[in-house]
Amino acid sequence: MKGNKPVIAVTTGDPAGIGPEICEKALANPEIKSLAHYVVIGDRHLLPSRLIGRVSTAAGKASVEYVEKAIDMALRGEVDAIVTCPISKEAIHKAGYKYQGHTEILAARTKTKNYAMLFVAKPFWVMLVTIHIPLKDVSRSLKKSEVLRIIKLAHATLLKAGVKQPRIGVAGLNPHAGENGILGKEETTIIAPAVAVAKKAGMNVTGPISPDAIFNQAKDGKFDLVVAMYHDQGLIPLKLLSFGKAVNVTTGLPFIRTSVDHGTGFDIAGKNRARPDSLIEAIKVAVQLVKNR
Amino acid sequence: MKGNKPVIAVTTGDPAGIGPEICEKALANPEIKSLAHYVVIGDRHLLPSRLIGRVSTAAGKASVEYVEKAIDMALRGEVDAIVTCPISKEAIHKAGYKYQGHTEILAARTKTKNYAMLFVAKPFWVMLVTIHIPLKDVSRSLKKSEVLRIIKLAHATLLKAGVKQPRIGVAGLNPHAGENGILGKEETTIIAPAVAVAKKAGMNVTGPISPDAIFNQAKDGKFDLVVAMYHDQGLIPLKLLSFGKAVNVTTGLPFIRTSVDHGTGFDIAGKNRARPDSLIEAIKVAVQLVKNR
Repeated sequence: MKGNKPVIAVTTGDPAGIGPEICEKALANPEIKSLAHYVVIGDRHLLPSRLIGRVSTAAGKASVEYVEKAIDMALRGEVDAIVTCPISKEAIHKAGYKYQGHTEILAARTKTKNYAMLFVAKPFWVMLVTIHIPLKDVSRSLKKSEVLRIIKLAHATLLKAGVKQPRIGVAGLNPHAGENGILGKEETTIIAPAVAVAKKAGMNVTGPISPDAIFNQAKDGKFDLVVAMYHDQGLIPLKLLSFGKAVNVTTGLPFIRTSVDHGTGFDIAGKNRARPDSLIEAIKVAVQLVKNR
Repeated sequence: MKGNKPVIAVTTGDPAGIGPEICEKALANPEIKSLAHYVVIGDRHLLPSRLIGRVSTAAGKASVEYVEKAIDMALRGEVDAIVTCPISKEAIHKAGYKYQGHTEILAARTKTKNYAMLFVAKPFWVMLVTIHIPLKDVSRSLKKSEVLRIIKLAHATLLKAGVKQPRIGVAGLNPHAGENGILGKEETTIIAPAVAVAKKAGMNVTGPISPDAIFNQAKDGKFDLVVAMYHDQGLIPLKLLSFGKAVNVTTGLPFIRTSVDHGTGFDIAGKNRARPDSLIEAIKVAVQLVKNR
């Protein structure tokens, strides 16, 4: 904090993408200007303009270094939160890193194990049990302990955000939530047992619910948060309902971190066509979460 | 046809579910009454009332027999279309059948191989490549020939329905459509090659597109139909956007068949709380498709 305003680190993400452009646009927004002090981490002049919109080793390396710098500042207490613009997984892999995305960089550098990807949106929040893995690996990656960990983290996160009696819905994995085992067993062997433990611990948790029904229920106000089993199960409905205003929060870290919900936009980079809406929402949620601490 | 009106067979589905109730309500609707002549196939008095809302062998057996009778009538030309109410997979399995649902009964009895589940809705239609299988089996079930078959059937179905230049979007399988192979290979080995063949044959097909982006594009009017790789990939967005008005059509059969988009509703059976909206839509779409023949 500086005066009564939070200090927010904003990383530009891949310099060949739309990150630098949306940073400039978002920080020129009068409401955003008034909310906090900002430290922008990046370099829009790193790349010759002919590299704009391309995957490159240089941009991949720089993208990771910006995030690492922001993390170190947050750990030292120099900033209250980190807001990140999109990086290219292909570029960071080209630069020799094994990370799947920001979340893994953040977890590794802060040595955090109990973290999760949370999407803050209206009319409900979404937390993911598995994230950036091929669809074919989702079933074997699903464990009762992980489903339970995410339910507990969702409950704790909602309490911290000021929701008095969090109501959590848990999605099934299979069509019709497995239809009593006919269309898959993970509901009965993994998800239901995790939900039972959480209920026994006093949490208001319902599930497993049919994946093609739970988001309508949440939209109608039945749940504050939906626990989704895999990336697209949560992200398809969220992106349809949030109109570009969903904010990606990494919960469980020693500091607050939010992110835009879109990619590097290489196809429109350098054309002054990128919209800062998602970054503006990400900054607003970061400021709100700092104030709720 | 009888006079200038189609003759529609309506099966009640599982007699212990909400099917008989929604049939009665839908057929009492003045607009529905005026559209067609109806043959209702079912028996609401089959079960003693204490069995309402329960899975039973008797109801499972009856559910399949209603559908078989309707199919035979349609094959003999006695009815122009079949509209089906929900059956319970658990009940039909209990009764000794191996079918996963209506679609498989229809395909088996009519000896149809080139069929697909199509969802007719606003603002776009959805066709599924894989249907009622556990999520863990989706990747191994996905074949280039099947993706191509569904794209071609989608194209033909749209033409038949009066869409002059069908625009088809094809979803990827993995998060971010595999992100160039980092999050899964099926996009490059299976989906993209199928799309390439369809394009070469002159169809307007785009994909594979990131699953968490394609439905927003379709919603914005970019596609007439989205080809989804698995049940929930297509059904989650469809059910969020269609407000209970999506109609399930089996395309490729020798006759027209539509269906409600909900389940047996055992939890509200016999309570006069079921809404006939989806059945009403299913009847309307059946009548429309008969007239377009």
